[in-house]
Amino acid sequence: MKISIIGIGLIGGSIALKLKRKGIATYIYGIDNSEQHLNEGLDLHIIDEKTTLGDGIKNSDLIIIAVPVNATKVLLPKVLDLVNDNQTVMDCGSTKSGIVNAVKDHPKRSRYIAFHPMWGTENNGPKSAVAESFSGKAGVICNKEESAEDALALAENIVQALDMHPIYMNAEDHDIHTAYISHISHITSYALANTVLEKEREEETIFQLASSGFSSTVRLAKSHPEMWVPIFKQNKENVLDVLNEHISQLRKFKSALEKENYEYLGELISNANRIREILDK
Amino acid sequence: MKISIIGIGLIGGSIALKLKRKGIATYIYGIDNSEQHLNEGLDLHIIDEKTTLGDGIKNSDLIIIAVPVNATKVLLPKVLDLVNDNQTVMDCGSTKSGIVNAVKDHPKRSRYIAFHPMWGTENNGPKSAVAESFSGKAGVICNKEESAEDALALAENIVQALDMHPIYMNAEDHDIHTAYISHISHITSYALANTVLEKEREEETIFQLASSGFSSTVRLAKSHPEMWVPIFKQNKENVLDVLNEHISQLRKFKSALEKENYEYLGELISNANRIREILDK
Repeated sequence: MKISIIGIGLIGGSIALKLKRKGIATYIYGIDNSEQHLNEGLDLHIIDEKTTLGDGIKNSDLIIIAVPVNATKVLLPKVLDLVNDNQTVMDCGSTKSGIVNAVKDHPKRSRYIAFHPMWGTENNGPKSAVAESFSGKAGVICNKEESAEDALALAENIVQALDMHPIYMNAEDHDIHTAYISHISHITSYALANTVLEKEREEETIFQLASSGFSSTVRLAKSHPEMWVPIFKQNKENVLDVLNEHISQLRKFKSALEKENYEYLGELISNANRIREILDK
Repeated sequence: MKISIIGIGLIGGSIALKLKRKGIATYIYGIDNSEQHLNEGLDLHIIDEKTTLGDGIKNSDLIIIAVPVNATKVLLPKVLDLVNDNQTVMDCGSTKSGIVNAVKDHPKRSRYIAFHPMWGTENNGPKSAVAESFSGKAGVICNKEESAEDALALAENIVQALDMHPIYMNAEDHDIHTAYISHISHITSYALANTVLEKEREEETIFQLASSGFSSTVRLAKSHPEMWVPIFKQNKENVLDVLNEHISQLRKFKSALEKENYEYLGELISNANRIREILDK
């Protein structure tokens, strides 16, 4: 199958590598605003050819959009304008409602699959791409009833080829769940980094003392604003809802400490420990 | 060198394994309230013999205390009561001021080295012990001027044998820095777990959707209250100070979202991104 990938970065690059390894992708067209990313994509054998949006789409069975969610919202209708009923379009955005709504009345809506592979790192660019990134993770498909049967079947093959397990939900539920499980983690991590940078003026000390625990908690704070501001913008209400809850949970720790109520502090921690059973089951 | 390790858990066990591998420890006595941990320690060749506090100390050149900081504060004076001027005692506590103060007038104070190996995981017990855990991490020694020269020299050998780089500071500074760099990460992580557990009632969804990002940020939330309540208690003032800053940093994200000030949101994120330069340098 010939595939166009729009956005040769961490996600687009990782998908390309995996679909080539699995033999699903016979030829990959790379489309990107960044000439550097395209050239790196060629050097790393992520793509076979760099091309324009029009030429890429014309020659492909499948078009995968892997750019920030604000760009996806603008780009997706234009891509759908160019496809015929034998072509399929998938995006990879971390928000789904805004994107799905942007094309809900598009005459080619049924050729589009709203997709979210639940994997990412704090890094970006094709050099960060790893073929096995997605293995064992969830591949969420939203509003599948709005897609044509053959387009859905093709997308399901792609999810399987990525070694992901498919999960189906509607776009609104997706955005609520990802606010809890992914978006708030980033805000927490950013705020933690800013806390430490604000309070710990001795950067050398941060570097010297930083343990694996700190590095792990603050890892997501390395993620770029170009990707994350649009996600928070598109999922504003859900993110605010969870952020308010998070601040109130932190206040419980503050209150327990201020009142020296260490029994309550222990209860808060024991409750948090339940996350182990859920994540490790 | 014969070594007694009090507390055959993650830290005590990892130290034992490494010091054996390096040939520094010729015989290790294990002391623990948990018969299970002692037996596991024997099975895993972490310790050579299980014994009592009195017998272990009597036969050892070095005594390493690796128990929660509240127990350390009680135990350390008792251990110092039993040592002579050829023996050295180290603890591994994540707080230092309270422990150092507890023995500051002890006649054997100079035999004690206030130590904090900057490594840990969310797991506990001897089965979690890993010999190479400490490699490349900081080994903090506090108030070294209060220790005898020969005791300090021995402790420095141990730090080197653990493949850690020694850092010297006073106990008060240590407790401020660890509040920033370690303790607040745990509170953040606990509060994040509680947020998700509170808001996301569908545990199956958490399990299915949890990406590596979420797992990374919430990893420390698996850490046990038996270890962490005493740390927060002993470092209450510093932790509260950093926690207040952290809540105010989160409020900035909340305000940027509420006011739809995405330029400011981008600035907050760009500032947080600076942590990459510091951690990756």
